[in-house]
Amino acid sequence: MAQRVTMHDVARAAGVSSATVSYVLSGKRPVTDATRRSVEGAIDRLGFSLNPVARSLRTGRSMMVALVVPDIANPFYALLARSIQDELRGRGYHVVVSNTGAERGEEEALLQEALHQRFAGVVMTPFRLATDAYEAIRGAGIPVVVSADTPFCDVDLVTPDAEGAVVDAMTHLAASGRRNVAVIAGPRDATGGDPRLGRITAHAAALGLQVRPENIVHGEHTREAGAEGFEKLMLSARRPEAVMCVNDMTAVGAMDAAERLGLDIPGDIALLGHDDIDIAALVRPRLSTIRYPAREVGVAAAQLLLEQIDGRTRPRTVRVVAHFVSRASS
Amino acid sequence: MAQRVTMHDVARAAGVSSATVSYVLSGKRPVTDATRRSVEGAIDRLGFSLNPVARSLRTGRSMMVALVVPDIANPFYALLARSIQDELRGRGYHVVVSNTGAERGEEEALLQEALHQRFAGVVMTPFRLATDAYEAIRGAGIPVVVSADTPFCDVDLVTPDAEGAVVDAMTHLAASGRRNVAVIAGPRDATGGDPRLGRITAHAAALGLQVRPENIVHGEHTREAGAEGFEKLMLSARRPEAVMCVNDMTAVGAMDAAERLGLDIPGDIALLGHDDIDIAALVRPRLSTIRYPAREVGVAAAQLLLEQIDGRTRPRTVRVVAHFVSRASS
Repeated sequence: MAQRVTMHDVARAAGVSSATVSYVLSGKRPVTDATRRSVEGAIDRLGFSLNPVARSLRTGRSMMVALVVPDIANPFYALLARSIQDELRGRGYHVVVSNTGAERGEEEALLQEALHQRFAGVVMTPFRLATDAYEAIRGAGIPVVVSADTPFCDVDLVTPDAEGAVVDAMTHLAASGRRNVAVIAGPRDATGGDPRLGRITAHAAALGLQVRPENIVHGEHTREAGAEGFEKLMLSARRPEAVMCVNDMTAVGAMDAAERLGLDIPGDIALLGHDDIDIAALVRPRLSTIRYPAREVGVAAAQLLLEQIDGRTRPRTVRVVAHFVSRASS
Repeated sequence: MAQRVTMHDVARAAGVSSATVSYVLSGKRPVTDATRRSVEGAIDRLGFSLNPVARSLRTGRSMMVALVVPDIANPFYALLARSIQDELRGRGYHVVVSNTGAERGEEEALLQEALHQRFAGVVMTPFRLATDAYEAIRGAGIPVVVSADTPFCDVDLVTPDAEGAVVDAMTHLAASGRRNVAVIAGPRDATGGDPRLGRITAHAAALGLQVRPENIVHGEHTREAGAEGFEKLMLSARRPEAVMCVNDMTAVGAMDAAERLGLDIPGDIALLGHDDIDIAALVRPRLSTIRYPAREVGVAAAQLLLEQIDGRTRPRTVRVVAHFVSRASS
């Protein structure tokens, strides 16, 4: 980060006092047009921006933006955090990441804190949050952006455009002769249901694939849940030929279980993830997955948040296109 | 998370009004001893704790604890965050994670925010922070715990006890006939220097190993820097037989570079990481590393912070023992 340009630097460049610069910025005392132009010119030339803390004290609003996510140990959210931070730092905002553990009580408490602290904005992936818990923060006029597979309330949304990717992934499975497909899905009580599961079941029949009800297992979006889910599926009378997972961490857990059970991926069973976090290309076999790029999601979320901070009130939705990435696991 | 016990529940159990419960808690109005005992009994039985926001409004101090780390995309810090959160949530504290990108300007700005917002505490891994930047937060009486390889100012510290692990790792290298050892170290300008490099060079000669000055390369603690560092080392006239990395992410970067260069690990060169994040056991070959357990580090940091919140003022240091973990890469 470059040395911060101070008000004193601006004053010197404009040939006025620091107090005069302050009057131009705050509008608290009148200054002549010539002085104003001179100060504004210096501000532009030097790239001066008001110290965030000073601005925060003036406006009564924090310069902090909360990113509220279900699992900070999932690298998707770590990368999302870095991306949002990169986009917002130029405007002086700091991003703090809060981990809810996918628990509704934590989600509610963290929103309450953001409200109490008068955060500049909230980007969140609601996992078990109910609509009413969100009304207070909306009422306080704090900008909110949701990053999720389904809309939440009537707020800005960044969401995957993943129909094509899912069709590509399932076409690939069908082409390699896998007909009996299982799904390690998310929990039954998640906010907004389980659209990733919905997309799979919606397209299966048309592509010649079968997703039998007993071959859908539910659990958290974690490595541990993936291992448990995979073991459950392998007990099935008609063992599936492919397993599609709700995210890559779940797929890594499925790999753990396959290794314990002595099953070969992709020989005995094909495995697909979702997200394409770095780990997907580090595990062996490398994981085929549906790439939902965290960096682009973060850029879109930050952009939506800044638009709201700058005055837009009508909600917008941005769709980030997902792609099927074929690797060695399928 | 269990349903929160409300003040109303306490009132009902004690057979008094909610207002009376509030008077007992706040001490704002006198109540009889019998009423006080009855309310306190109900509080104990029900496990009631004052709503964090209400308490925060009363004390003027936030219930938020800041974890300030150099790189949130390094799973060590994600796990540290989860661990600290698990330890503090029982006391009603919320942990927010701030990523500094290892930049001094961000470190300073985030400390300023924690001060401005009157955070309940700060746990940080200073990367380029200078001592003076820290005085303001100490002056405000906000508890601080540092998690780092070297002390920072005169505050609580969680730090590795890694001498034995480093000696074990290097003994293992010597036993497998690797004498010429290189180090992918951290940046030259990091706060507190580079104790991980220091531990390696301190023990090399006694163990019959050679760490030539041209075989020490410096860079950030990232995967990208690891790849760059490894490539530099491979240009050396006397190519090293083993590379020890400042952390596991750097070692993963070294693996990327080795793959590009067509070098076999451990056939052509042994590779060691530091930390033992999950990825260490997921990559192939599995990475030998010095295990510094993020979960235990988090437990210790949270404990130190709570002790300070509860009134301890004399600084304490907790050493968490690191262990050498031998896997396939060495």
